[in-house]
Amino acid sequence: MAAPVIEADAVVIGAGPVGLFQVFQLGLHEVQAHVIDALPYAGGQCMELYADKPIYDIPGTPVTTGRGLTQSLLQQIAPFQAQMHFSQLVESVTRLEDGRLHLITDAGTTFIAKALFVAAGVGAFVPRKPAVPELEPFENLQVHYPHDAALTEGSLQGAHVVVLGGDESAVTAALQAAYAPVDAHRPASVTLIHRRDVFTGEPATLQQLDAARESGTIRVLPAQVTGCGTDGSRLNSLHVLTAEGTEISVAADHVLVRLGVSPKMGPIADWGWTLERKQVPVSTETFQSEIPGIFAVGDINFYPGKRKLILSGFHEATLASFAAMAFISPEKKVLLQYTTTSTRLHQLLGVGTQEKS
Amino acid sequence: MAAPVIEADAVVIGAGPVGLFQVFQLGLHEVQAHVIDALPYAGGQCMELYADKPIYDIPGTPVTTGRGLTQSLLQQIAPFQAQMHFSQLVESVTRLEDGRLHLITDAGTTFIAKALFVAAGVGAFVPRKPAVPELEPFENLQVHYPHDAALTEGSLQGAHVVVLGGDESAVTAALQAAYAPVDAHRPASVTLIHRRDVFTGEPATLQQLDAARESGTIRVLPAQVTGCGTDGSRLNSLHVLTAEGTEISVAADHVLVRLGVSPKMGPIADWGWTLERKQVPVSTETFQSEIPGIFAVGDINFYPGKRKLILSGFHEATLASFAAMAFISPEKKVLLQYTTTSTRLHQLLGVGTQEKS
Repeated sequence: MAAPVIEADAVVIGAGPVGLFQVFQLGLHEVQAHVIDALPYAGGQCMELYADKPIYDIPGTPVTTGRGLTQSLLQQIAPFQAQMHFSQLVESVTRLEDGRLHLITDAGTTFIAKALFVAAGVGAFVPRKPAVPELEPFENLQVHYPHDAALTEGSLQGAHVVVLGGDESAVTAALQAAYAPVDAHRPASVTLIHRRDVFTGEPATLQQLDAARESGTIRVLPAQVTGCGTDGSRLNSLHVLTAEGTEISVAADHVLVRLGVSPKMGPIADWGWTLERKQVPVSTETFQSEIPGIFAVGDINFYPGKRKLILSGFHEATLASFAAMAFISPEKKVLLQYTTTSTRLHQLLGVGTQEKS
Repeated sequence: MAAPVIEADAVVIGAGPVGLFQVFQLGLHEVQAHVIDALPYAGGQCMELYADKPIYDIPGTPVTTGRGLTQSLLQQIAPFQAQMHFSQLVESVTRLEDGRLHLITDAGTTFIAKALFVAAGVGAFVPRKPAVPELEPFENLQVHYPHDAALTEGSLQGAHVVVLGGDESAVTAALQAAYAPVDAHRPASVTLIHRRDVFTGEPATLQQLDAARESGTIRVLPAQVTGCGTDGSRLNSLHVLTAEGTEISVAADHVLVRLGVSPKMGPIADWGWTLERKQVPVSTETFQSEIPGIFAVGDINFYPGKRKLILSGFHEATLASFAAMAFISPEKKVLLQYTTTSTRLHQLLGVGTQEKS
């Protein structure tokens, strides 16, 4: 059975702040967008790297956070009902004979789009993997990355659990496994492996870790993973080299990988365009790349004077929307209307037009 | 005695949203700005034309008003302590031998600036004048425009007052004169002259006007002003042509002109640059005009793709700040720092740097 094909006026790659504002500007032109992101939620870098850190340079917003900005933008674009396609990466983009763009994601979703907006920032945020290729066959079965849907309540019950990583998310994962709220769900053992015996995180989290170490609930092992052992089809241990230089084996039924995320350009890098310093050259008139119908906005694009700032991405997404109308509705006359005065825009935004005074 | 000369790194013409954000971006580069505006307060077009009307397209701000945006921006730029020079127009700009720019305002203030940022929108908002040049000698003495400091409490006492105009501000001015809170301050008569017997404003204001007409407190006269009468040195009447075609004379000790504002490009139009559609062509790399050291940002500039949107002005002001550092501190290496992570920017913004987690 063939997977469904989504025919769209506009597809936006990246649900970071610039991708979200792209939805808003397309909405003002009465274009509904589909948005694809590798993460399972909106916000991109803002959520992944500084969700709770302050941002002071969004114009008109004296202070917010990555999460606050994301929430404001989601509220702002709500009237335009964009379709969000999370947890997937665009694997290929080709052009159909009728000029439209054909996209396939790694989740098998297919889009046929009149215009494509690449707001992919520094790349898709994908979890860092341990340097042990032998673990790959066990991914989503016994080796789990953040947001792994296969890992549900109780699935660690009675198991030997190993957590890899040294940051807040790693420590939290170890604590959550060790102190499962339902006693019966608790694992047989929890080992936290990090290359050095130094952990970062909120003071309260680190205190909990200290207590768990002292009580023997969590074993902390400064070491590097070098390989793994199996009973044939099933992973049952990790081979590690300890900080003291000893090779040992650690029982492992489930491995929670919490090594952080790293941006990955992925297939975008190979779409046949010339990248400059890993960025996509664009025109400052249209923010179109050298490929007709593909626009690049935000940190991923490049032009003389470019600064990687969110506020520049907002401007770029705006001009890209105007220019893209030539692909989306070539017959339509594109006018600049103001949200303060336009009755039509008030209808689209779902707000009452003020009485004329 | 010579007027004081202000030596400045940066002068910004226009205290609208883009001029205010220009201050912010200069502040991040440790440059303090002087801001000049024709109005007696910040906000420009936002305050003058839509102070209480909604704006939906400021990124990250789902809804605000002209006043709300102005207040947010003033809060955002507060750490940078810009010097505001209100109620004055820049009359001339010339270049000194050392390359700096020499500005004189119509209030006699002189600036010597390393870089000039023209964020003048559609021009300075200056009050419309009645088409009667003979009234000019009486300006600020007996003929008053909005924000006229010469008009203080009690100065209309016992006088024949004429208000010119048909909008909310004209009706309000007539009502405020007629119903001065202190009885003794009340004028001898109040006449409201507008070309047609049609007034605009809040329903409550128009109801008050109806009541004042009925009680004879305010005389409403549909007419056009054609001239004036004096007793030699002093204005004592206006000559008007009524809607019925009769020429009559109206006693007038004080005339309150409330004919609205109109943007005036003023001397900026004659600075020796080539304007396109009344806009200043700029580079999209630097937002510099054809005159070195003079940058143009916001609605006043032009480049391919230009849309007159506040959010574009924010981007333009940002890139202009970076480019202008070559004039302001040519020896300094200009780096892009992020307000989320830079300890130095946190110091400048007066906020505590978060503990490294």
